[in-house]
Amino acid sequence: MLSDINISSPDLSISGQLQEKIDQKTKPLGALGKLEKIALKIGLIQQTLSPCLKKPVILIFAADHGITAAGVSPYPQAVTYQMVLNFLAGGAAINVFAKQNQIELLVIDAGVNADFAKQTGLINAKIAYGSANFLQAAAMTDQQCQLAIWRGRELAKAEVAQGSNVLGFGEMGIGNTSSASALMSALCRLPVNDCVGRGTGLDDAGILHKKSIISQALTFHQASLDDPLKVLACLGGFEIAMMVGAMLGAAELGAVLLIDGFIATTALLVAVRLKPTLIDYAIFCHLSGEAAHSRLLTELNAEALLDLHMRLGEGTGAAIAYPIVQAAVNFLTEMSSFASASVSQRQD
Amino acid sequence: MLSDINISSPDLSISGQLQEKIDQKTKPLGALGKLEKIALKIGLIQQTLSPCLKKPVILIFAADHGITAAGVSPYPQAVTYQMVLNFLAGGAAINVFAKQNQIELLVIDAGVNADFAKQTGLINAKIAYGSANFLQAAAMTDQQCQLAIWRGRELAKAEVAQGSNVLGFGEMGIGNTSSASALMSALCRLPVNDCVGRGTGLDDAGILHKKSIISQALTFHQASLDDPLKVLACLGGFEIAMMVGAMLGAAELGAVLLIDGFIATTALLVAVRLKPTLIDYAIFCHLSGEAAHSRLLTELNAEALLDLHMRLGEGTGAAIAYPIVQAAVNFLTEMSSFASASVSQRQD
Repeated sequence: MLSDINISSPDLSISGQLQEKIDQKTKPLGALGKLEKIALKIGLIQQTLSPCLKKPVILIFAADHGITAAGVSPYPQAVTYQMVLNFLAGGAAINVFAKQNQIELLVIDAGVNADFAKQTGLINAKIAYGSANFLQAAAMTDQQCQLAIWRGRELAKAEVAQGSNVLGFGEMGIGNTSSASALMSALCRLPVNDCVGRGTGLDDAGILHKKSIISQALTFHQASLDDPLKVLACLGGFEIAMMVGAMLGAAELGAVLLIDGFIATTALLVAVRLKPTLIDYAIFCHLSGEAAHSRLLTELNAEALLDLHMRLGEGTGAAIAYPIVQAAVNFLTEMSSFASASVSQRQD
Repeated sequence: MLSDINISSPDLSISGQLQEKIDQKTKPLGALGKLEKIALKIGLIQQTLSPCLKKPVILIFAADHGITAAGVSPYPQAVTYQMVLNFLAGGAAINVFAKQNQIELLVIDAGVNADFAKQTGLINAKIAYGSANFLQAAAMTDQQCQLAIWRGRELAKAEVAQGSNVLGFGEMGIGNTSSASALMSALCRLPVNDCVGRGTGLDDAGILHKKSIISQALTFHQASLDDPLKVLACLGGFEIAMMVGAMLGAAELGAVLLIDGFIATTALLVAVRLKPTLIDYAIFCHLSGEAAHSRLLTELNAEALLDLHMRLGEGTGAAIAYPIVQAAVNFLTEMSSFASASVSQRQD
């Protein structure tokens, strides 16, 4: 399946012209900072001097995690289900931010431990009623992992086919920071200590317990951690695997990827290990308050656009960052140049 | 005149209820980071659990500076005039961002060294055709300084009277980072070295020259630097003085102040020295790439919302930050609570 996925790096031959267009805008050189880098990146992705963002959509993947049985979260597993209902009712943070910024939301049941009634805005892509407890078994079978990736890829491709060229990735799943920390430790070969944070709000004792659980899991699976797909199957979750597939599918079709916080970045890490060129399509929207995110971005040689001390997931970082990404495209396409506005350039 | 200005600190008795409302939203405690602090601040300013932002407007104050004769900027003074025309034609960065985020723009000629034709969107509040060269004289007379403050105050009050409760402050004026650096050094009693940056893009030699000029000016005026109004008259500019007045007027009427970058923050510094309670109304939108801004925010015990490495002024930081400020208000007023959404709270 992976051999079917072809993600080509953007052709860099247009970058000189893009930079020239940026530099001729009526502002000192470089004065729009990170917005200039984003404008350049999106111009490269779209291979045009006049990029545009169309039909932004955020996909929220939800699933439950067997590892919650090990007491890694202060919240009960049922909150995953309850929060999906909250998303569908429009009451969560991501709803508020997506509505404000006119971003479509799609909620995907990748593996929640409950059944939902059919309804608008919810896609049933359930692989199973939650992953297995990865202390005792692989979180998912290889078949389940591949199915999740395949479904995510198809979902993202369908959004692009319907006209979206910018996709955000969010998630909900009680316990999923444990899964993400384990993935990060295994894939980056970093000590568990560097990969674990407070999640939804663990106290110091809770963090120690979580680190111990993850260490045990990494030991249990150590013979299977050579290959990114195996790592994902052993330690991931259905929402993370489906996000990996969705990122791959969106990048295959040349969409801009808005990467949210820590969990979404671990999904991207898996995707990049499978297809390294995927990173050329990614904008890292927000540095999570979850301690390990900063380290993970360093591993990816990436920098986040925002640092608002948020640590909520759901795609909230992507939704909040969207107007700034839009502003980057807008200055490139709408601002006057020194010549067109008859403004003098610097004299030295 | 200053004795007429009364800015009362928001009554803190509502803060417990505001924090409780924030904490009952369907998210882990504190998970919306800086947005929670902004929501609390605006709730306090408006003295309500359900704040709202109405008719956002950014005032861009433009003026020329006599100090440009000392070669402190790589751009010719005429760029101030040219950029005002660019603002009025809609081609500058601030136009693009304000339009995107539906923020009204008003350009104020506080003292540009040129005449403008009467036109929509431009307010003629000119004090003079540029300030004096503060190497040789006070940048403005005490009367000019007070007139600028008074006009700024009236302008801001008029905006609030027309229904705006959130005002951003931007500026344009070739040479005004020199004025801002001098103000900062004099008012914070900090070495010139800590207060000077590259402005629109000085090289190392240019920075050394700028520091030398500012040091000379501070020595020249040293007998007059005891009182913030005198400091402003000696070292300020008409756009800075008018911004000081506009901030005071807006805060008097209980508006939220969106403070842009380095120059706007030095105007706020002057305003806070005149009326310390003004700071309760201010949101610091963006940490400028101008090196001294970070230090100045530390002096004010303040933290900026964004750090996008921008260094453009014009109010661009305020315009870019506005959707995030709006998001802070929106989550407070629109998100469900644990109770209303039937989501379980943490178990410990």
